Amino acid sequence: MRFANRLKAATARNNSLLCVGLDPDIRRFPKHLGSDPSAIVAFNRQIIDATIDLACCYKPNLGFYMAYGAAGLEALAETCTIIDHQVPVLLDAKVGDINTTSEAYARGYFEELDVDAVTAHPYMGLDGIEPFLKYEDRAVFILVKTSNPGSKDVQDLELAGAEARPLYEHVAAQVHEWNARYGNCGLVVGATWPGELAAIRQICPDLPILIPGVGTQGGDLEAAVQAGVDTQGAGILVNSSRGIIYAGNGEDFARAARRAAMALRDRMNAVRTNA
Amino acid sequence: MRFANRLKAATARNNSLLCVGLDPDIRRFPKHLGSDPSAIVAFNRQIIDATIDLACCYKPNLGFYMAYGAAGLEALAETCTIIDHQVPVLLDAKVGDINTTSEAYARGYFEELDVDAVTAHPYMGLDGIEPFLKYEDRAVFILVKTSNPGSKDVQDLELAGAEARPLYEHVAAQVHEWNARYGNCGLVVGATWPGELAAIRQICPDLPILIPGVGTQGGDLEAAVQAGVDTQGAGILVNSSRGIIYAGNGEDFARAARRAAMALRDRMNAVRTNA
Repeated sequence: MRFANRLKAATARNNSLLCVGLDPDIRRFPKHLGSDPSAIVAFNRQIIDATIDLACCYKPNLGFYMAYGAAGLEALAETCTIIDHQVPVLLDAKVGDINTTSEAYARGYFEELDVDAVTAHPYMGLDGIEPFLKYEDRAVFILVKTSNPGSKDVQDLELAGAEARPLYEHVAAQVHEWNARYGNCGLVVGATWPGELAAIRQICPDLPILIPGVGTQGGDLEAAVQAGVDTQGAGILVNSSRGIIYAGNGEDFARAARRAAMALRDRMNAVRTNA
Repeated sequence: MRFANRLKAATARNNSLLCVGLDPDIRRFPKHLGSDPSAIVAFNRQIIDATIDLACCYKPNLGFYMAYGAAGLEALAETCTIIDHQVPVLLDAKVGDINTTSEAYARGYFEELDVDAVTAHPYMGLDGIEPFLKYEDRAVFILVKTSNPGSKDVQDLELAGAEARPLYEHVAAQVHEWNARYGNCGLVVGATWPGELAAIRQICPDLPILIPGVGTQGGDLEAAVQAGVDTQGAGILVNSSRGIIYAGNGEDFARAARRAAMALRDRMNAVRTNA
């Protein structure tokens, strides 16, 4: 089954546009879990158990595992095993390299780790992303307009000529073309930019959009959902990491995470219903 | 000691602008090493022993380790231990994320793995690169014009306004500014674009430039050295991976690698002498 269909199935089953970010930082864990990298699996397992009927996707960010070296990567592999394809896993690895290297990464992420999708930088162009796109049942979410303030440094630059549009709109149009060829592209657009998100949705009416940046980063949830949904009121994965996984820090942290996830999911669904 | 000084010391000691790419692909290893991920360390150890007096830097590309999951990352850590800071290690990880995530990656790469430098994507802007730049004794090599054909897709786009230059030149100018603030930036420019490399050297007269793309990728070694060197005839790290590490595939593969490394080093030095 194609990634888009697995995502649609999870969205329908859990009535959810919520992507839960699994970004473990042991320093922020509840004390009773200890401070060893093995705590990551125990932490993630409880978060997953508490949210798997509320999420349409999980998004582990590779950086929070690489921080602990090989032990962290082991914990990531075990986390994927726990999720066991009940909902899709989007590995936020922000890949982007030359072709032969991307082939190696793709073997690691799509075969060894067996995740459903990855995020990718567009700066090196299509040939470095193709080795991932060739896995027909997986997906690649390409960075278009990211949630951070520094996204203006490069992404907002105005292009010359007939284009006369900012770089991120051009990238969105490129991804639209790449998707026409491969059929398994998605986009990444920060919730912090609802105006830009609406423009990008115009350029790519049918592509799934990963929307990080609500919560700690300050994005407006309702505005992002309104600007991002496709004509069916779906097609977005709104990610929250810290706002969910660190909602509590006592022994009942997983219950707190569940409450936070449910509240976010329901707020998003209210926007969809009112639309 | 700053990275730039460690690099200069290695360049002077080994009379070398050669960066050896450690990109293990077990399928291409000499048969006698076996086909287990543990073969990576045995392979790298022999390549390192055979080239450590000829290289100014080693560049492991993370993708070729991630292909083997946690076992691959263990092999990378052990490879760094073998090199033991005798010459700098530039981890080709092509990082680029939001600030808090980059802090996590930086702990993993600069503290756990303890490499001397990383490569980075510019697409997300300065704030995602700063957590790496804050390690004063490490360096960040930012992608400007990459060696692959697809680099034209985004990097060559012409900017509007007073700029009227391609994106990659703008990025080079940005890196020049970032370096004025932090002092530990470098650039990545493919050997496949000697004209662009010369223009970028004009924009950043003093920054170290990593130059991949000679050998298999077809870059012209002499043209790249000529276009890339700074006014002191140095300041470049010309990378070769497959051309060196797979120069032979028998039991004497390390000797073949040494011969290939020496030939490349000497060809580069001949260009410097004639300049």
